[in-house]
Amino acid sequence: MATPIIFDTDPGVDDAQAIAIALAHPDIELLGMTTTYGNVEIATATHNALLLAELAGQDIPVAQGAAMPLVKTKHPAPAHIHGDNGLGNFELPDVRGQAIEQNAAQFIVDQVNARPGEITLVAVGPLGNLAAALQLDPSIVGKVKQVVIMGGSVKEGGNVTPVAEANIFNDPHAASRTLTAGWPLTMVGLDATHRCVLGPADMEKIAAGQGRLGEVLAGSYHFYRKFYQSALGIDGCCPHDSCALAWLMRPDLFTTARGHLSVATDGLAEGQTLFAPEGRPFLGERWSRTPLVEVCLNADGQGVVDWIVDTLA
Amino acid sequence: MATPIIFDTDPGVDDAQAIAIALAHPDIELLGMTTTYGNVEIATATHNALLLAELAGQDIPVAQGAAMPLVKTKHPAPAHIHGDNGLGNFELPDVRGQAIEQNAAQFIVDQVNARPGEITLVAVGPLGNLAAALQLDPSIVGKVKQVVIMGGSVKEGGNVTPVAEANIFNDPHAASRTLTAGWPLTMVGLDATHRCVLGPADMEKIAAGQGRLGEVLAGSYHFYRKFYQSALGIDGCCPHDSCALAWLMRPDLFTTARGHLSVATDGLAEGQTLFAPEGRPFLGERWSRTPLVEVCLNADGQGVVDWIVDTLA
Repeated sequence: MATPIIFDTDPGVDDAQAIAIALAHPDIELLGMTTTYGNVEIATATHNALLLAELAGQDIPVAQGAAMPLVKTKHPAPAHIHGDNGLGNFELPDVRGQAIEQNAAQFIVDQVNARPGEITLVAVGPLGNLAAALQLDPSIVGKVKQVVIMGGSVKEGGNVTPVAEANIFNDPHAASRTLTAGWPLTMVGLDATHRCVLGPADMEKIAAGQGRLGEVLAGSYHFYRKFYQSALGIDGCCPHDSCALAWLMRPDLFTTARGHLSVATDGLAEGQTLFAPEGRPFLGERWSRTPLVEVCLNADGQGVVDWIVDTLA
Repeated sequence: MATPIIFDTDPGVDDAQAIAIALAHPDIELLGMTTTYGNVEIATATHNALLLAELAGQDIPVAQGAAMPLVKTKHPAPAHIHGDNGLGNFELPDVRGQAIEQNAAQFIVDQVNARPGEITLVAVGPLGNLAAALQLDPSIVGKVKQVVIMGGSVKEGGNVTPVAEANIFNDPHAASRTLTAGWPLTMVGLDATHRCVLGPADMEKIAAGQGRLGEVLAGSYHFYRKFYQSALGIDGCCPHDSCALAWLMRPDLFTTARGHLSVATDGLAEGQTLFAPEGRPFLGERWSRTPLVEVCLNADGQGVVDWIVDTLA
């Protein structure tokens, strides 16, 4: 039986690939997408989610959500990474559909309550929608099947500050609420995603396998790849958001540990995820009071890339 | 020509071994020791520094310094790691000498001014004495030869919190002042010291080679080793403080990078050292404004242990 998921996303080049996976994989039932600002502004995120589903020929509900962080001032969207249109400035066809009436948080609450114990939330952007859903109905903590987060970093260091990953840094207060809610949660952060590099030859196979959607994926990848070349000196891209789905379908490709997460919400370390492994003594209990979660500390990078290509080619 | 150093220390089991190295190595001229609270209370630190030099048959000036942090509340000394007497509760002989009249900060200032461009400061405890010396005479920034710090962590995680190393956590304000002063500085933190494990067989050779001092080193090691066994599950100890001297004498055993350090002084990440590699772009300049320093990111652990044993056996 396919796993029913709600995909919370800010597409974004790597989001687009993950959406293609969620649309294509026979073992995933995509109930809907909820959108947030992050890689792009909120209207662009919603536009792109609608467009990507249409290009795949599928009718998937899209619910619009957070336009800005809970508390902190919003940073501008990183157009140098994802392009002004979020898809590498690749020229895009028109969108026919539109977002549903419900907002993202309400959609999550309603879906989870309609199918208690069944639905997995996969969130790959800033976590405002999940935090808002928890505020509307805290009982969803006991009703989701699981929550998979692309975000954070334990030992890998950050990508927007020396210690913070972009999704958590974009809304550290929402991340703190979401990562410490007490639901069954796995964090797939840079410790795993930076092990995975998807090269140009991989992308050619994906482009060939995905029809009109493949053209957009390949076109946007081309732009995203330039950022990786100039900023990080590697030829290829880390498929961050696809890794969250890879963990869901192929947990055997990841090394995980159980422990306690906290999120620094201000100061120099703002947006950092602090991980206290279960049972490891530290000075005081401060870092070990949050509910136990699972954190990916490593990944079989080539295995993950092969899984992505196999799914989309 | 031997390298003249001032050794700033809170002995402490691993400090004791490093002091033995500073006393024994033909290429190190130990001008004096300055003491701080940290692994032990300040009176114990001064007592142990005097004792260790006496056991080696050397007359080395010892200047007492900081009894507590600059700003934060002092934590109790970690007697479960270093013993109540700082040397693993090994029964110690009486001390004959006493500390000099000058305090630690004044000793540092006077020595550096007397030999401008010549003296290396090696600090392996909380950094209150170096911060106090900078406050007395900021011109020492341009007069030390170099500064070597045992402390901090970049990717290794912390040892007293998930992200903070003990020396920096003990006085993050002093650490911030010291690590960003603009003098030629190398940080030797857990990324290097955790690569090095000194086992029981190594310690037997050291005990045999150091006479009465060797008895104390081996006796205190016995206690320290139990902590490593119970807390970290390894048979052996990380010779943290000796690594600072190893870097000074054998930099070829370490992998270093240049960049900018900042220290989180409060919040969940209190005591964390944040490292922004030179030229690596982050969101904003906040993490790249501090003076360039050198940071050890890895070490040839067996090579360092061999160097320690060769020096002391």
